[in-house]
Amino acid sequence: MTPGRPVMPGADKLRRGLPADVTEPPSSARPDDAEVPAGGSDVAARGATSSRSGLVPLTVHRRDPKPDDVEIDIEFCGLCHSDVHATRGEWGERAWPLVPGHEIVGRVRRVGSDVRGFAVGDRVGVGCLVDSCRECANCLDGVEQYCERGNVGTYGSPDPRNGGELTQGGYSERIVVNERFVLRIPDALDPAEAAPLLCAGITTFSPLRYFGVEPGETVGVVGLGGLGHMAVKLAKAMGADVTVFTRSEAKAGAARELGADHVVVTSDPEQLAAAHRSLDLVIDTVAAPHDVNDYLRTLRLDGALFQLSLPSGSMPPVDPRLLIRQRLSYGGSLIGGIAETQEMLDFCAEHGIVADVELVGADGLDEAYDRMVAGDVKYRFVLDASTLRPDSTAASHGAQEGQR
Amino acid sequence: MTPGRPVMPGADKLRRGLPADVTEPPSSARPDDAEVPAGGSDVAARGATSSRSGLVPLTVHRRDPKPDDVEIDIEFCGLCHSDVHATRGEWGERAWPLVPGHEIVGRVRRVGSDVRGFAVGDRVGVGCLVDSCRECANCLDGVEQYCERGNVGTYGSPDPRNGGELTQGGYSERIVVNERFVLRIPDALDPAEAAPLLCAGITTFSPLRYFGVEPGETVGVVGLGGLGHMAVKLAKAMGADVTVFTRSEAKAGAARELGADHVVVTSDPEQLAAAHRSLDLVIDTVAAPHDVNDYLRTLRLDGALFQLSLPSGSMPPVDPRLLIRQRLSYGGSLIGGIAETQEMLDFCAEHGIVADVELVGADGLDEAYDRMVAGDVKYRFVLDASTLRPDSTAASHGAQEGQR
Repeated sequence: MTPGRPVMPGADKLRRGLPADVTEPPSSARPDDAEVPAGGSDVAARGATSSRSGLVPLTVHRRDPKPDDVEIDIEFCGLCHSDVHATRGEWGERAWPLVPGHEIVGRVRRVGSDVRGFAVGDRVGVGCLVDSCRECANCLDGVEQYCERGNVGTYGSPDPRNGGELTQGGYSERIVVNERFVLRIPDALDPAEAAPLLCAGITTFSPLRYFGVEPGETVGVVGLGGLGHMAVKLAKAMGADVTVFTRSEAKAGAARELGADHVVVTSDPEQLAAAHRSLDLVIDTVAAPHDVNDYLRTLRLDGALFQLSLPSGSMPPVDPRLLIRQRLSYGGSLIGGIAETQEMLDFCAEHGIVADVELVGADGLDEAYDRMVAGDVKYRFVLDASTLRPDSTAASHGAQEGQR
Repeated sequence: MTPGRPVMPGADKLRRGLPADVTEPPSSARPDDAEVPAGGSDVAARGATSSRSGLVPLTVHRRDPKPDDVEIDIEFCGLCHSDVHATRGEWGERAWPLVPGHEIVGRVRRVGSDVRGFAVGDRVGVGCLVDSCRECANCLDGVEQYCERGNVGTYGSPDPRNGGELTQGGYSERIVVNERFVLRIPDALDPAEAAPLLCAGITTFSPLRYFGVEPGETVGVVGLGGLGHMAVKLAKAMGADVTVFTRSEAKAGAARELGADHVVVTSDPEQLAAAHRSLDLVIDTVAAPHDVNDYLRTLRLDGALFQLSLPSGSMPPVDPRLLIRQRLSYGGSLIGGIAETQEMLDFCAEHGIVADVELVGADGLDEAYDRMVAGDVKYRFVLDASTLRPDSTAASHGAQEGQR
């Protein structure tokens, strides 16, 4: 235990990884005034037309690339739990239609005249963000996810630099994104298995780095879904000793297969008690309301618990005595910035880390959603975007293409 | 804003400040077996004989100094809220009698044969701790307050190295403490006004240092009592811009007199809203159950709220969305280690910081407790220990000796 160790030793690295141009002087033009070129094209997509529609065939309009835009032919798009919440209206009513998807991998189709970082044919990715103000302190520090004026999400966000239209996501054939928000997918990574890194990967990588996990430190992971299984792989690759918390003995084997060193079945009070004050960090990926005090008790001095999923209801109160007696911290973390997402992708390539995925065709999306809600997937569905075209033979084979 | 800045830059300093002998090999003898010399003396004190007795005249036995002990003639002892909780049984039933007091300042009366750090006549202090295991990782790291085997509190704790007897605190004429747990009180500090530094001072200094407050950063203080008024003074001396949160406009003037740059009257929603995302750190000293979400909303990216007082009941739930959207941390902190307490005393001497105190005589303790519970003290009562002797003329003048 090293009380008082810096919480984020990776900060300098993050800053070094920033694109050179992020310090350019703020533009005097309001982004809303930005001219949107005419033209563009309509491409096949799947999305919701209401909170009860399910995912139906749609077309979305994609602009022609502006000078700093990259146009991408989408190959794969991961299915994230937030896609379910958004399309089913569980986070409130919203504008329709909505094409979800923010775990996008594809190939560059065209680039704007000023684009220098990408060329036609490059394999690239797009995560949860497609823009931000680029001028506030947080954007300049490379944490665009915390943009003080509000970031522009990959779907369902008004896009000030493109006429204020709502963004539409990756369950579509093509997307056009400013090059600052495009990631390089290393050749070593399988494109379908890399897709979930763009959200599930960075959401767990970022708090592991922010805390500054070092080899030999002990990390607990609560919840073994899309995020949880990535947390196990990433923490192991950082050299941590990993404990998975699961409610049932049934998942213990799967946790060990992913690399977990220990499994604590939380329905067994003795196993929970044995983990008392044994961990430096807990990554909590559970979205359902749950009692975090059980996990705070497993932390030792200066430990931290990061909650990553927005809960769907009110959580039981935290016991401040637990925080005071071990100088603990109960915190949260939101995805990651663009530079850090690239760092994560490169880290995954170096360590041979991808997500465990099950491919699904366009016609199988609704069924996949139901299975996600039931926790019946190991561990992430990925849409094969080649099945989106109405005339695609692939689409006709329906629900799923099988596990990879 | 510097996302990812190390949370505790003072850690090296802390370690450098450790006494040279903390790395000595663990003793093979169990502390419980330590021989307790015969002899010693009975001294006058005030304490509780039950949760309803109030503070009555008592005598407590003090051992003769062992080779590494320091015997102290107590001059002053601060009155802490935990003294009230303990003597009134509000933290559960306990062994009686109980002599409270852990903000002790006095003069060295005698030293054991091996004591090198203190000499007869030195002005010294004793805070919340009089011993710990001295061997666990936390003790070796200078954070004895988090001793893995449990620290030995200044009152009401079994003392393994002294026959397991319950410790008795500073509302007494004299105390005998191992020299490792004795602090030097700098000459620049008035001894009565320095007494509250030993608990209220270190309890607020430690999280300010752990967070790593830098000049120009913004610190909020919730609650303007013994702890809160020290937090304002210490944060100002560290160069912070300080905001005091208070429920009523009436305390705004007092907050500004202490050095607060801004006052937010929390009963006014507009004032609270205006403080939205303006602070780097909030020091929350309120012990009554309260909603911390109001204060979490005033934190900006990577901000932290430290809760310092054990609440007397269940707290309302924390909203995890606030934590996630700004990567906030909700944490706690427990007093401070011995080396850090010395650092705090030296810092106070350098910056001319003491507590605002109201002196009280032994016969005025019960009334002082009632006034503490009512929040009617600016900001700390301090017992004049010269009034403890049954024959002292000072004792006869009763309730209080007036504000200093």
